[in-house]
Amino acid sequence: MSTSDPSQVAVPSREGVAALPATDSSRRRFLTQGASLAGTLAAASAAATASAQSVPPWMTVPGAPMRGYGTPSKFEAGVKRPFASGYASVSPATGSSRTPHQSLEGTITPNGLHFERHHNGVPDIDPGKHELLIHGMVNRPLVFNLAALSRYPMISRTHFIECAGNSGANARPKPVQGTAGALHGLASTSEWTGIPLALLLNEAGIAPDARWILAEGADSAAMSRSVPLSKAMDDAMVALYQNGERVRPEQGYPMRLLLPGWEGNMNVKWLRRIKVTDGPAHTKDETSKYSDLQPDGKARQFTFELGVKSLITFPSYGHKLDRRGWYELTGIAWSGAGRISKVEVSADGGTNWREAALQGPILSKSFTRFRLPWDWNGESALLQSRATDEKGNVQPTRQAFVSQYVVGMNYHNHYIQTWAIAADGSISNVFA
Amino acid sequence: MSTSDPSQVAVPSREGVAALPATDSSRRRFLTQGASLAGTLAAASAAATASAQSVPPWMTVPGAPMRGYGTPSKFEAGVKRPFASGYASVSPATGSSRTPHQSLEGTITPNGLHFERHHNGVPDIDPGKHELLIHGMVNRPLVFNLAALSRYPMISRTHFIECAGNSGANARPKPVQGTAGALHGLASTSEWTGIPLALLLNEAGIAPDARWILAEGADSAAMSRSVPLSKAMDDAMVALYQNGERVRPEQGYPMRLLLPGWEGNMNVKWLRRIKVTDGPAHTKDETSKYSDLQPDGKARQFTFELGVKSLITFPSYGHKLDRRGWYELTGIAWSGAGRISKVEVSADGGTNWREAALQGPILSKSFTRFRLPWDWNGESALLQSRATDEKGNVQPTRQAFVSQYVVGMNYHNHYIQTWAIAADGSISNVFA
Repeated sequence: MSTSDPSQVAVPSREGVAALPATDSSRRRFLTQGASLAGTLAAASAAATASAQSVPPWMTVPGAPMRGYGTPSKFEAGVKRPFASGYASVSPATGSSRTPHQSLEGTITPNGLHFERHHNGVPDIDPGKHELLIHGMVNRPLVFNLAALSRYPMISRTHFIECAGNSGANARPKPVQGTAGALHGLASTSEWTGIPLALLLNEAGIAPDARWILAEGADSAAMSRSVPLSKAMDDAMVALYQNGERVRPEQGYPMRLLLPGWEGNMNVKWLRRIKVTDGPAHTKDETSKYSDLQPDGKARQFTFELGVKSLITFPSYGHKLDRRGWYELTGIAWSGAGRISKVEVSADGGTNWREAALQGPILSKSFTRFRLPWDWNGESALLQSRATDEKGNVQPTRQAFVSQYVVGMNYHNHYIQTWAIAADGSISNVFA
Repeated sequence: MSTSDPSQVAVPSREGVAALPATDSSRRRFLTQGASLAGTLAAASAAATASAQSVPPWMTVPGAPMRGYGTPSKFEAGVKRPFASGYASVSPATGSSRTPHQSLEGTITPNGLHFERHHNGVPDIDPGKHELLIHGMVNRPLVFNLAALSRYPMISRTHFIECAGNSGANARPKPVQGTAGALHGLASTSEWTGIPLALLLNEAGIAPDARWILAEGADSAAMSRSVPLSKAMDDAMVALYQNGERVRPEQGYPMRLLLPGWEGNMNVKWLRRIKVTDGPAHTKDETSKYSDLQPDGKARQFTFELGVKSLITFPSYGHKLDRRGWYELTGIAWSGAGRISKVEVSADGGTNWREAALQGPILSKSFTRFRLPWDWNGESALLQSRATDEKGNVQPTRQAFVSQYVVGMNYHNHYIQTWAIAADGSISNVFA
C-alpha cells in the first residue's frame, strides 16, 4: 500500500468549509495546499526506495500479443451497463441498459457503454439487404441502400442522446437508491457521422403542403415517431458512424435517425422508412407512451426538445469519501437547446452556489464536463449541480418540475439531483 | 437491389473534371446536380412501392436483448486492426496492430481499434497493485497508487498518438500495396482524461538543475524514454481514461504518459516510474531505435514533435470507384505543432490544388476530418492531400523528405501520400 493512500494521510482542516470557495482561489489552494496528499518525506522516501527496487510479476514474463479488436481490462469487468427488461416474462428483449456514469470520465461515451432502449430487441440486420424508403408527400419516392447513401456528402457532429424516461425513478414518492448510471444512465454522447436528412428529402422533392415526417425503424416493434419537417430540414442526420466506426447494433445498425437535442425515442434506430406527411401520425409510440399527464387530466403529447440538465458523477451513490479534505467534484451537463453556459454546485442543498469550471470545447447539444474543488469538513452535506444553457434555460428544482404533472409522471425529468453525503462518507439519493 | 445503386445510375459528364473545382461551387453542384443519384422517377417509384410492401425477416421475430458491454455487428467483423509481429518466431507479442482508417469516419478512434505497438506484449497489470514512482532530482520521492492519483484534479483533452514508425513502408524503394490503415494506421485519436504531470512533479519538488525526466513502463521490455522537463511541465498528462472509460490494456492500463503531439513511443504505456534527471538517459529505446540516420552517417537521435500530415481515407487502396461522376473525397489531417489550418487536395499528382472543407471543432494535436467533392471523369488520376498547420508548417513531398536521410530511413514519415486511380476505378499506392 502506498504511503500516498489518502486514507493514511492527515490533512489539516481549513477555513470556509461550509460554503464552497470560489473556483479560482479554491483551485489554487487545492494545488498549493490541498493537493499535497503524498505523506511525509521520510515515509515517502522509504516507499519510493522499496518501489524502485521491486519488480512487479507482470514485468517478468512476456505480455499478451496484438488483437484485431480490443476489449477493456478484465479488472474493469464491473464497469458495464446495468439493465433490466420491463417485461422479462413476456419480452426479455424489451427494456433498457444504462451508461455507468459513476465510473466514466470526460464527455465521450465508449460505444460498448452507450445506453440501450429497445421495444422488442435488437434486430439482426444484414446491411446488404437493408433499405431506406422516402415516400409520402414527395415528388418522387426513393429507396436507398447503404452503398447509395454512402455516396452522399457527410458531416460529423458530437451530440448526446437521452431517453425520455431517463431519471424517471426520481418520480417515485420516495428516492430510489442507485448509482448515477442506474438513475441517470439513459443518456450518452458520441461523435456521429452521417448524411444531412435535408439532403435526402430534397432529393425526393417535398410537396408544398408537407409539414411532418413519420420515421419508422426496422425492429420487430416497428418503432415509429412523427417529427416536424422543420427539424428534419434543420440539423437532422441519417447517422452511419458512431465514434468513428459503424453505428453499433444497439444504436441502430446500419443507420439511425439523429435529431440533435430531441427526445431519444425520436432518434429512430434501424431507420427503414421516412414518410413525408401533412401532420403527425399519432403512432402507438407517441400516444400511449412518451406523453406527459398533467393534473387537469390532459396529457402533453409532444415534448421534443430536452431540458437543460446536469449530474454530479463524483461523488455519487456507490462511492465513499474515505477521509475529510480536498476532493474534485465532477459531472456532466447538457441541454437540448444548445451549449452549456454555466454549471453551479451547492454543498448545502441549494442555499449557497459556486460556479464550476467547464471543460472545453463546449459543444452544442453535447455533454460538457464540469469540475470544482471541494474541501469536505467531514460533516453531512447535500451536493447539487445546476446547469444553465446559452438560451438562458436554468435546470429546475424537483419541486418546480413535478408540480406541473400528476404524481409519478416519469418522462422528461431534468431537475436537480441531490446526493446526500453522510458523516461516514457514504452517499445516498435524496429529494431536496 | 435498390435502383439507387450508383452502378445503375447514369450521370452526365460535366466540364472541369481534370482539375478539382473550388469547394463551394463544386459542393453546390454536387448537391444540385451531382447528388441526384437516385435514378429515374418511374423506376424509383416501382422500387419504393415494393419496399413499402416488403417486410424484412428481422422484423418478424423478437430481437436480441440488452448487454452489459456492446460489440460491433457481426457484419463488421472485417473492420479490425491488421497486425503482425516483427519477430513472430522469438517474440510473438512484439509488433504492432493498426487502425483501419479506410473503414472509419469522423475523428475519434473507437477504443477497440486504437493502434497498438508493443515491445514485449501487453502486461496483465492488477491496478490495485500498480504504483507510479517519481524520484531522482526531486525534494521528496513519491509513490502513487491509483487511488491516490484519482484524488488529483483532472483534465480531458482530445489528441492523436502516432508511432514514429507510422507510414514507414513508404520508405521502401518500391511502393507497398496496402490499405490506408495498413500503411498509415499507427495513428489514432482519443479523448484522454488524466492528471497534468506538472502537478505531480511539483508535489515531489523539482531540483533547480533538473532538465529531463526518464519515463519507464511496467511491460517486460521496461520500455523507457527520456523527455525534456519543459514538455513534462507543459501539456504532459498521466492519462487514466480513454474515450470515457479506463485506458485500455493495449494503451497502457491503468495509466500512460501522454505527450500531446510528440512521438508515440515517448507516450510511455503502463507508466510505473518517472526519474527527474539533468540529461537524457540514452536508453536502448532512443539510441538503437527511433533515431534517424542521415547520409553523412550521423543519426538524429531525438525527433520529438511529429510533422504536419494528412491522409485521404476515401478513396484509398482496397476501395473501387464503380462509376464515373461525383464522389466526396475525405480523410484526416493532424500536426504535432498544433491545429490544422488548411488541407489541399490534388487529383493530378500535385499540379493543381483545391482547398478541402475542414470539419470543426478543429482541435490542437488532434485528427481533423477534411472533405471535398470530386467529379471523376473515368480517367486515371493521382490523388494527394497536403496539410498545413497553424504554425505554417506544410506537409512535404516524398522527395523533399527522403532526401534528408539514408535510403530506407523509415521513422517520422509525414510526407504526401499518393493514391493512383486507374481507369477501371481500382486504386494503388504510388510514389509521385
